[in-house]
Amino acid sequence: MSNGGKPQTAITPTRADNYQDWYQEVIKAADLAENSDVRGCMVIKPWGYALWENIQRVLDGMFKATGHVNAYFPLFIPVSFLEKEAAHVEGFAKECAVVTHHRLEARNGKLIPVGELEEPLVVRPTSETIIGASFAKWVQSYRDLPLLINQWANVVRWEMRTRLFLRTAEFLWQEGHTAHSSADEAVEETMKMLGVYAEFAEQYMAMPVIQGEKTAGERFPGAVQTYCIEAMMQDRKALQAGTSHFLGQNFAKASGIQFTDVNNQLTHAWTTSWGVSTRLVGGMIMTHADDDGMICPPKLAPQHVVIMPIARKPEERQRVIDYCKSLKKELEAQQYAGAPVRVLIDDRDSGGGKSWHWIKKGVPIRLEIGPRDIDADSVSMGRRDKGAKDKASVTRGELVAKVTSILDEIQQALFDRALAYRKEHTREINTKDEFYEFFKDPPKKKDSDPTPIHAGFAMAHFNGDPALEAKIKDDLKVTVRCIPLGGGEPGTCPFTGQPSKQRVVWAKSY
Amino acid sequence: MSNGGKPQTAITPTRADNYQDWYQEVIKAADLAENSDVRGCMVIKPWGYALWENIQRVLDGMFKATGHVNAYFPLFIPVSFLEKEAAHVEGFAKECAVVTHHRLEARNGKLIPVGELEEPLVVRPTSETIIGASFAKWVQSYRDLPLLINQWANVVRWEMRTRLFLRTAEFLWQEGHTAHSSADEAVEETMKMLGVYAEFAEQYMAMPVIQGEKTAGERFPGAVQTYCIEAMMQDRKALQAGTSHFLGQNFAKASGIQFTDVNNQLTHAWTTSWGVSTRLVGGMIMTHADDDGMICPPKLAPQHVVIMPIARKPEERQRVIDYCKSLKKELEAQQYAGAPVRVLIDDRDSGGGKSWHWIKKGVPIRLEIGPRDIDADSVSMGRRDKGAKDKASVTRGELVAKVTSILDEIQQALFDRALAYRKEHTREINTKDEFYEFFKDPPKKKDSDPTPIHAGFAMAHFNGDPALEAKIKDDLKVTVRCIPLGGGEPGTCPFTGQPSKQRVVWAKSY
Repeated sequence: MSNGGKPQTAITPTRADNYQDWYQEVIKAADLAENSDVRGCMVIKPWGYALWENIQRVLDGMFKATGHVNAYFPLFIPVSFLEKEAAHVEGFAKECAVVTHHRLEARNGKLIPVGELEEPLVVRPTSETIIGASFAKWVQSYRDLPLLINQWANVVRWEMRTRLFLRTAEFLWQEGHTAHSSADEAVEETMKMLGVYAEFAEQYMAMPVIQGEKTAGERFPGAVQTYCIEAMMQDRKALQAGTSHFLGQNFAKASGIQFTDVNNQLTHAWTTSWGVSTRLVGGMIMTHADDDGMICPPKLAPQHVVIMPIARKPEERQRVIDYCKSLKKELEAQQYAGAPVRVLIDDRDSGGGKSWHWIKKGVPIRLEIGPRDIDADSVSMGRRDKGAKDKASVTRGELVAKVTSILDEIQQALFDRALAYRKEHTREINTKDEFYEFFKDPPKKKDSDPTPIHAGFAMAHFNGDPALEAKIKDDLKVTVRCIPLGGGEPGTCPFTGQPSKQRVVWAKSY
Repeated sequence: MSNGGKPQTAITPTRADNYQDWYQEVIKAADLAENSDVRGCMVIKPWGYALWENIQRVLDGMFKATGHVNAYFPLFIPVSFLEKEAAHVEGFAKECAVVTHHRLEARNGKLIPVGELEEPLVVRPTSETIIGASFAKWVQSYRDLPLLINQWANVVRWEMRTRLFLRTAEFLWQEGHTAHSSADEAVEETMKMLGVYAEFAEQYMAMPVIQGEKTAGERFPGAVQTYCIEAMMQDRKALQAGTSHFLGQNFAKASGIQFTDVNNQLTHAWTTSWGVSTRLVGGMIMTHADDDGMICPPKLAPQHVVIMPIARKPEERQRVIDYCKSLKKELEAQQYAGAPVRVLIDDRDSGGGKSWHWIKKGVPIRLEIGPRDIDADSVSMGRRDKGAKDKASVTRGELVAKVTSILDEIQQALFDRALAYRKEHTREINTKDEFYEFFKDPPKKKDSDPTPIHAGFAMAHFNGDPALEAKIKDDLKVTVRCIPLGGGEPGTCPFTGQPSKQRVVWAKSY
């Protein structure tokens, strides 16, 4: 099959040819996850789950360092709890798994649900109401506040159109829930956790993000203010990668979280919630992966280094393996990002396919070691941030001394590349025509062609009118991703000529 | 109120007075968990969850060291999957949460489940069938085996009579699932993981266990052999603390896990599964807690040391706090069980109640430090394995030098005490009369009195007849907890006079 003179790549199709199929193929080639037989639910395979475990470990440390403790609350929420907050039930009732029975009985050779529940239970789509019920019991006095709780859990939202990691009926996440004795303190918490998410995204995922506030239309159901981090994917759509909500007293009133304040007045608490999910794995893929497959940012990579012994003659094999083992030990004695360097020896007897196997899985550093390398006391090294055929020979001593700085270089290179990409595809737009032109997708050659890569982020002024935002969403499938923190120069809304406080980020989104 | 000359205790009632109520009160006083508003579901509070996190961290390390990797599978199981293994569906269909709808709609001011599913989904009570469906896709050749997978997850079994940690509708657990190319290898895996559980229980939980095999009546539904670890609680009932199942080819046949073997023959794989749950937290409470509250085994304690500054005069306060902070740093520089010693300063302004607060929570070492202690460069130390009023004065230098060996001493003391208790209440029994006498509970004074403490474990011969076992269960609520590994002398079954291969463990159980 001719490939039209293009360089050969491990993933077919390429990003440019069909971005959505490329995404699925990268996941498959790296063995990260797969669809299950249960509608909308995914199986997270060991390599994908290892990325999530590393995300969890780092974030959990950051949550604890900011004073939070973990707890666990019920999977099931009585429908009456959900109803307590009007906007909240409106937001979640349309897509939830409802438990109605507690037994199966065989009738005519078929298992039938029996034992109907008096009150149906919803599988948690989020836990504000069920955690609120506990907080109401735990809080009496201002001395009981703040309550700073986090939960690692699975949640279910009955999505009709799912996509691995990005949108699935069941997903894994953490949800922070806090209660405070003043609005100011709750707002401060909301912003602090947004900052934690931004730091994590940029420093660990190597994924540049814009921190900002959501407009009313994109707010969490029941929240007073929703803040988010937004990242640009390689199809130039935005991914909302984490949210932090100031809930005011809305949920405290719904759940009865009250305390006697310093003046002995009974007052409702101010609460927050904040979460990130397995969606972050999707974000990593779409930020870093290339036409050769996954690229794991070193700080979260399941393995930092893979060593591939190459011994064609059986009599050489033991010598090469021994050399690899002793090198592994030396590398593992190095500390990277607070833990030993993670090294894997792939001594499967499978020849030349091994290197591509690990390229597709996105391991940061690949080492090939054969008898001649040993004689020269050197190794052949490939870095995943460089081309598949770009290999360098380094001495063993140099490699051991530099392995952590090479990992740092790769981590930084990934971040720099992603930031440059975002900058390249972000444009300040000042007229309505230019805006509509920017977001008009290039024409497809035929109807069955995949959606092409989009234009990017538009930084444009906006008068804040929800009706205008709705019209633009209707026309272009473009929304305000966020109103960036830190403000900006005031100006004129290009759609209405009215005054605008600052430019906002417009984009198509996941 | 007179207490009849008994020593005063922090928990009312005591173990002897009402064991079940004592258990609930220990949990409440230590703030470990509480019942939720959702039937049968508990809320695991931060102190209880921290114990579970430590259990997870250690076990996860042990699973990885034995070659397992983590993955994640769907929460929901189609009813048709459950039906594939006959014994399995029989075992779990009677008590499961069934999802039948995927939307709620307001009708006459009430939210009604709508959007009925074509096939009902069961919230996983265990995951053999749903994981089997994935394994069937992942395994083609003997080269794909063994598959060594673990999952940390929540599961739901619709229990009618629940008890915090020991038996709840929803609980947290890990479930290992492995597939192998030979029966021998699968049996070896089953035994290896039983050994991991026993090591964890004894070395980390300080809870002595008996390893053994279950009789047919107590086997996991669908298993060929079920092995378990059994521990004696302080009411002398047995707690099944972990199970490891050899599933033969039963589930491989049900799920279609087939591989081509070295001779190119298509063969069903041999599988295992093994699990422990948040029940272990209940086991720790019932093994170690006393009439003053919880006792955390040091290796799993959320905090190892609590420092209570005592400064009655405001001008002394800063000096005492500073001293405590510098001591905290010194203690945290010590390594215990592979991690820094965990130290908390409780500088709440709440006077004498603080010491009892931490006794009830079970922190291994309590330090009280006032101005006079500082002048003498010493601290007042209380150990949770000793009486509440038993305090020793130690110099600061001595404390820092010895803190990890003190923690080791406490860990060992807890294990020794539990082992001595089990030995004291385990009896070899050789006649039927003696057996029935042993298990006859002492008479209650009035019907409303709580069940008294039971007799213990009986080591008795048994001919292995399921009908006899059922009769004894019916008569006494006593079952064979396990057939201990390692065999033993053959003898005569005291109930039938028939030959018996070895003595088995009989007990009442949770």
